[in-house]
Amino acid sequence: MSENRAVAYKEPGVVEIINTDYPTFELKDGPGVNPANVGRKVPHGAILRTVTTNICGSDQHMVRGRTTAPQDLVLGHEITGEVVEVGPDVEFIKVGDIVSVPFNISCGRCRNCKERKTGICLNVNPDRPGSAYGYVDMGGWVGGQAEYVLVPYADWNLLRFPDRDQALEKIMDLTMLSDIFPTGFHGAVTAGVGVGSTVYVAGAGPVGLAAAVGAQLLGAAVVIVGDMNEDRLAQARSFGCETVNVSNGDPKDQIEQILGVPEVDCGVDAVGFEARGHGKDASHEAPATVLNSLMDITAAGGALGIPGLYVTGDPGGIDEAAKHGSLSLSLGTGWAKSLSFTTGQCPVMRYNRQLMMAILHDKVQIAKAVNAKAIPLEDAPRGYAEFDAGAATKFVLNPNGYVKA
Amino acid sequence: MSENRAVAYKEPGVVEIINTDYPTFELKDGPGVNPANVGRKVPHGAILRTVTTNICGSDQHMVRGRTTAPQDLVLGHEITGEVVEVGPDVEFIKVGDIVSVPFNISCGRCRNCKERKTGICLNVNPDRPGSAYGYVDMGGWVGGQAEYVLVPYADWNLLRFPDRDQALEKIMDLTMLSDIFPTGFHGAVTAGVGVGSTVYVAGAGPVGLAAAVGAQLLGAAVVIVGDMNEDRLAQARSFGCETVNVSNGDPKDQIEQILGVPEVDCGVDAVGFEARGHGKDASHEAPATVLNSLMDITAAGGALGIPGLYVTGDPGGIDEAAKHGSLSLSLGTGWAKSLSFTTGQCPVMRYNRQLMMAILHDKVQIAKAVNAKAIPLEDAPRGYAEFDAGAATKFVLNPNGYVKA
Amino acid sequence: MSENRAVAYKEPGVVEIINTDYPTFELKDGPGVNPANVGRKVPHGAILRTVTTNICGSDQHMVRGRTTAPQDLVLGHEITGEVVEVGPDVEFIKVGDIVSVPFNISCGRCRNCKERKTGICLNVNPDRPGSAYGYVDMGGWVGGQAEYVLVPYADWNLLRFPDRDQALEKIMDLTMLSDIFPTGFHGAVTAGVGVGSTVYVAGAGPVGLAAAVGAQLLGAAVVIVGDMNEDRLAQARSFGCETVNVSNGDPKDQIEQILGVPEVDCGVDAVGFEARGHGKDASHEAPATVLNSLMDITAAGGALGIPGLYVTGDPGGIDEAAKHGSLSLSLGTGWAKSLSFTTGQCPVMRYNRQLMMAILHDKVQIAKAVNAKAIPLEDAPRGYAEFDAGAATKFVLNPNGYVKA
Amino acid sequence: MSENRAVAYKEPGVVEIINTDYPTFELKDGPGVNPANVGRKVPHGAILRTVTTNICGSDQHMVRGRTTAPQDLVLGHEITGEVVEVGPDVEFIKVGDIVSVPFNISCGRCRNCKERKTGICLNVNPDRPGSAYGYVDMGGWVGGQAEYVLVPYADWNLLRFPDRDQALEKIMDLTMLSDIFPTGFHGAVTAGVGVGSTVYVAGAGPVGLAAAVGAQLLGAAVVIVGDMNEDRLAQARSFGCETVNVSNGDPKDQIEQILGVPEVDCGVDAVGFEARGHGKDASHEAPATVLNSLMDITAAGGALGIPGLYVTGDPGGIDEAAKHGSLSLSLGTGWAKSLSFTTGQCPVMRYNRQLMMAILHDKVQIAKAVNAKAIPLEDAPRGYAEFDAGAATKFVLNPNGYVKA
Repeated sequence: MSENRAVAYKEPGVVEIINTDYPTFELKDGPGVNPANVGRKVPHGAILRTVTTNICGSDQHMVRGRTTAPQDLVLGHEITGEVVEVGPDVEFIKVGDIVSVPFNISCGRCRNCKERKTGICLNVNPDRPGSAYGYVDMGGWVGGQAEYVLVPYADWNLLRFPDRDQALEKIMDLTMLSDIFPTGFHGAVTAGVGVGSTVYVAGAGPVGLAAAVGAQLLGAAVVIVGDMNEDRLAQARSFGCETVNVSNGDPKDQIEQILGVPEVDCGVDAVGFEARGHGKDASHEAPATVLNSLMDITAAGGALGIPGLYVTGDPGGIDEAAKHGSLSLSLGTGWAKSLSFTTGQCPVMRYNRQLMMAILHDKVQIAKAVNAKAIPLEDAPRGYAEFDAGAATKFVLNPNGYVKA
Repeated sequence: MSENRAVAYKEPGVVEIINTDYPTFELKDGPGVNPANVGRKVPHGAILRTVTTNICGSDQHMVRGRTTAPQDLVLGHEITGEVVEVGPDVEFIKVGDIVSVPFNISCGRCRNCKERKTGICLNVNPDRPGSAYGYVDMGGWVGGQAEYVLVPYADWNLLRFPDRDQALEKIMDLTMLSDIFPTGFHGAVTAGVGVGSTVYVAGAGPVGLAAAVGAQLLGAAVVIVGDMNEDRLAQARSFGCETVNVSNGDPKDQIEQILGVPEVDCGVDAVGFEARGHGKDASHEAPATVLNSLMDITAAGGALGIPGLYVTGDPGGIDEAAKHGSLSLSLGTGWAKSLSFTTGQCPVMRYNRQLMMAILHDKVQIAKAVNAKAIPLEDAPRGYAEFDAGAATKFVLNPNGYVKA
Repeated sequence: MSENRAVAYKEPGVVEIINTDYPTFELKDGPGVNPANVGRKVPHGAILRTVTTNICGSDQHMVRGRTTAPQDLVLGHEITGEVVEVGPDVEFIKVGDIVSVPFNISCGRCRNCKERKTGICLNVNPDRPGSAYGYVDMGGWVGGQAEYVLVPYADWNLLRFPDRDQALEKIMDLTMLSDIFPTGFHGAVTAGVGVGSTVYVAGAGPVGLAAAVGAQLLGAAVVIVGDMNEDRLAQARSFGCETVNVSNGDPKDQIEQILGVPEVDCGVDAVGFEARGHGKDASHEAPATVLNSLMDITAAGGALGIPGLYVTGDPGGIDEAAKHGSLSLSLGTGWAKSLSFTTGQCPVMRYNRQLMMAILHDKVQIAKAVNAKAIPLEDAPRGYAEFDAGAATKFVLNPNGYVKA
Repeated sequence: MSENRAVAYKEPGVVEIINTDYPTFELKDGPGVNPANVGRKVPHGAILRTVTTNICGSDQHMVRGRTTAPQDLVLGHEITGEVVEVGPDVEFIKVGDIVSVPFNISCGRCRNCKERKTGICLNVNPDRPGSAYGYVDMGGWVGGQAEYVLVPYADWNLLRFPDRDQALEKIMDLTMLSDIFPTGFHGAVTAGVGVGSTVYVAGAGPVGLAAAVGAQLLGAAVVIVGDMNEDRLAQARSFGCETVNVSNGDPKDQIEQILGVPEVDCGVDAVGFEARGHGKDASHEAPATVLNSLMDITAAGGALGIPGLYVTGDPGGIDEAAKHGSLSLSLGTGWAKSLSFTTGQCPVMRYNRQLMMAILHDKVQIAKAVNAKAIPLEDAPRGYAEFDAGAATKFVLNPNGYVKA
């Protein structure tokens, strides 16, 4: 059995590089694999040599110990790779293709996939609709922060880049197609962003910055990003966003200073359930802060895109309600303004091809916007630590040396 | 000054018939009129002799004393009338026209009206976007449960019926165009109902029944209505709906018995903030019950239409959170299923013409579905009382004898 | 090699029952098979024992000799079957399933399929986007007017009926899901039909009648069907449509008599390039008649759905322009009214599941509307002849006796 | 009666500056005024002192003598102005406002206006839906290439700029909001342009260039503009478009050289009925050239936006068919690819506010893209002549000196 170096969760706060098995066309038992998925045949799969694989904010939920992730779970759902083997059922994807892997795993054969709802595929996760690589309670598909990874339903899932050299040249941008760029873009789309919109994005982490870039790409007139991390806000300003520091108080007043009115057309929640309070409450978690704030500052008739994760249970929550995933929402504020709300995983396949086109034709610089930085696989623990400490950096693991200095 | 008999709120639990002034083309001071609206000229208005005007569930919030409605507020926002006078700026509406009045008052001249968002017009209510006749904190436009009523921006607001005789013949159906039929239909539309959908409507009051009719008109395969009032459930069954009695427990199990699966494609909340618990909790208010239940029973990828009213404050709420309009929502349940949510007043003008066509061409029997019953204006107090007591009846006031026995 | 009785095109005007090979999981050479498809492996396919397979108007183009269809081409693209074998790559479809086959063949793996545009799949027809069973110049997939048929990409293409007994009981309705019901419905959808619309459908053949049914299901207020075949018009009236006989002249005047205005909101072209003139010109072909008429009678702001087939070349056309597929269109008429136009094959998978739900829950009687009639496979020649002669009947072949008398 | 200098059509090829009446709140008789509109009261109107008013390609149809425009018709439908008087029914627009006038005149009170279809308003033109200022057969509303102009339904029609100084500073961009920017943008929107699209725009006149800018604003990956005027193509290249010179032959091959494939996702026709042939046929009119070409080069599943004007009759057409507005279209080519088509006037009010926001926040430089050039009113004849001769310039008349050198 060949060796396959990979990033694994060990215990709260600790990730390590471990040796795992080289993938085969079968989902074998292992940490976090759902029993109903053990032994599942994957003749429709492709094995990739990882070109890049990014550390994601949602990995941090597991690493911080806020989930039931088991020891030795191989992490990583943001994957770009080179196809090195294909199963017997793969017809169109070829060995040698450089491909982007949507973080949502989907079958391409169920009702939801046929309706383009690939974030809630019915056939890949025995527990519930929707799955992802290297994630707790998602069926057990092995993560891609590794030298090699198996992708099921390869003809359906994989987005092939048209030219290998061009792809490797723009790899730091293209690597964002597996998750954060479509996820941020979906936030902007579902917030109703269009040409001329004014937009507030809560959260200046990579997804928030990607939402801001997405809003600009959709033609927004003004994009305002809020956070309490000044480095991340500086990052947002670097590509033309306005910013508000929510540790200085409610964003409403600062928005009014920028726009002349205390309201925006569109609101994006790129924070999720680990939100903190605003102003003097910024030091502790307050899970409903962002949604209540967005209802307050989004103009009547507007929409909220909510790519930020909300969970059904959070053992580490600040109180009983939070532990059970209950949020105290001022829904009446939203109702009086006829707001609409869209939640859930981004169905990456709905957007990745078009965003790839924008990258390949130089219409967008997502890598620069999120301050992407390639590091060796072995440095993943450091990347996790720095990201958790608030670095305004998107870490891209480079397990096989495809990314040149 | 001519006399104008009208239904007025007197105190919690009490409505009375009073004498008020015949309208002029000016909004005069009176109970509940916003000072900024006092003296407002209405040359664009029309004065209607009321043909029908219905008692609405949202009137009950005021009558039950759950709002700050002032004494002698003239009630009524569901109005159909005959035009008897038009202001000098009215160009297309003519004296003698039989017209339906959308309950949302809108100007036809602001950004939101131009975008068809007439439920949140920016120019009619000095306090906030959106207004309605005869409603507390909505600017002070006088209610239509009266012999005569003033409608501003008449060319914009009024829907003219093409033929007077035909209109009067179908008046018990057409009277539902001012509010509940579009409102219920909007609930179905925003819940994503289409041909072949399975739908659950929470609440079998008039709006819930109208949502069920709307869902059928949109081609739904199965419409299930839930309530704890058996008479209202019987009404739902009378036009082909399935029903569940939520006092018997969570609707999920009963839905599974009907459909074979415990989920529907689309969920409609036609209850709002005065919701009660399910099963053994059915005896007391539990404002988040309906929304949490709908997130539970709506399938991944579905949508929730929320025509049921949620408020920003409810002095009569069961606890501190309820008094401040805060709901304890399991948003993570919805997020995991990628649900979307649409709230707010129905923008009636988006639907009333097409629903009128369906009525005039006998494609729908909304009056029968909601068990419409015409009563004299003087019987309004009885109508309010019976409706509040749970009568499976939609009361239609008949102030000028247009509705024949 | 087992025997497989099938309906084949022999020469203009002649179809015959022939013996062909039982299908295998490979596309073998044969009449009309594109050389690039010969030998194509189909491990993702399923072999069906045909339950029903309908004669379609578009088959008639071939049978009349208006195409280059080769001798012994096995006809038939409207197929419902029982799965009797599945290839090694089929994961979710099981032997014994009763399934509907979309007439468009699609791979579920190309850009267009991922965007739900299954009528123009990029991978199944070497000549151009889009394919169908048993059709000239569509890649050579063998037709289904036979005892057995191969369906590629079975997990993607096939719609499984939830219950075998229920399916066989409603089989005369469900058989319409393979083509004409979605095709007619698509015509109505793309014509913008919604609740309260007025609709004109040109053509009372099965697709036109299905469009009329579809318009009703979408909530249309009035559906008017035009044709010059009185039996077919009587069929349209049988389920509540208004009708106009275009051999009596331009439909405009007759529409005005029905509606009071000479215009409809929505127009459907269910005729296509073999159109004849109106009124005194009804005796000869005039390929642009229907489109020019629809531009005339569709109100400003309306839309035209065009499921009727238009071709790039028609060797049997009435003049040089027709032979080259050129139509003389008064586009300015449409432009002045801001009309929009949607052409092309219906992407069946976008609609078949929801229409199945409507059938299974008794919301629609499509078999009755199109006067479906089951006949033995051996009677196909008679069915073709009667249909070509204008019978107001949709012929359903019953090759294996599933349909009981 | 005050004097009002204006640009008038005199005879084919000749425009002159004439003295006309200062407007009042009534539509008086005059050249081209529909008798049914004579004497129409306009208490809802505003009188503007013209800030800018542009020469449009569609004016040229009249000036070239291809219409029945009467002598002394005052031209001009692209108007930006300062409000100097308002009628008694105007409530929200104020004297001193700087406003953009949508070229489509609409009432804000008919079904079509309520549905945002302001290009086909039912109440302003007695002949047919839709109207414009200073245009033949459009009801007779006086043109705005003048010092002063009357705008009816001012509260509905006018877009107020938020700040006077800012507006005058950006006036050369904002002046494009009255017509060509929304019109070009509508072409891009209806062609389905989105993030990552490849787009071909036929025609590099101002509308074509505006469509190209619009496509970029919508996030297009590649915009290719075709024309046979090298100066205009150079203009397109100046802001990042690719170009093809159609006098060198069919655009298909040149597109393939640019994109690697001979197809685009989206096609825009910014030429209309005065199209010429491609390649060796470029010297003469061939009205169907552009549409047939777009059907050829637009990929299956794509859409065509058709802002270019097509007429119902063209006395100056090259042959009998052209004189009657008949085009010889290869519709089968489009049908085989499931293309859709959107025609008609742009409903300016659907887009002008959002495009204004993009201009005010420096997201787009439309004036530079179309090479806008301000000239005195008196130079209008020269402007018409140079524009007709193919100058790559958008001429902006400056009747009252608001535009500073």
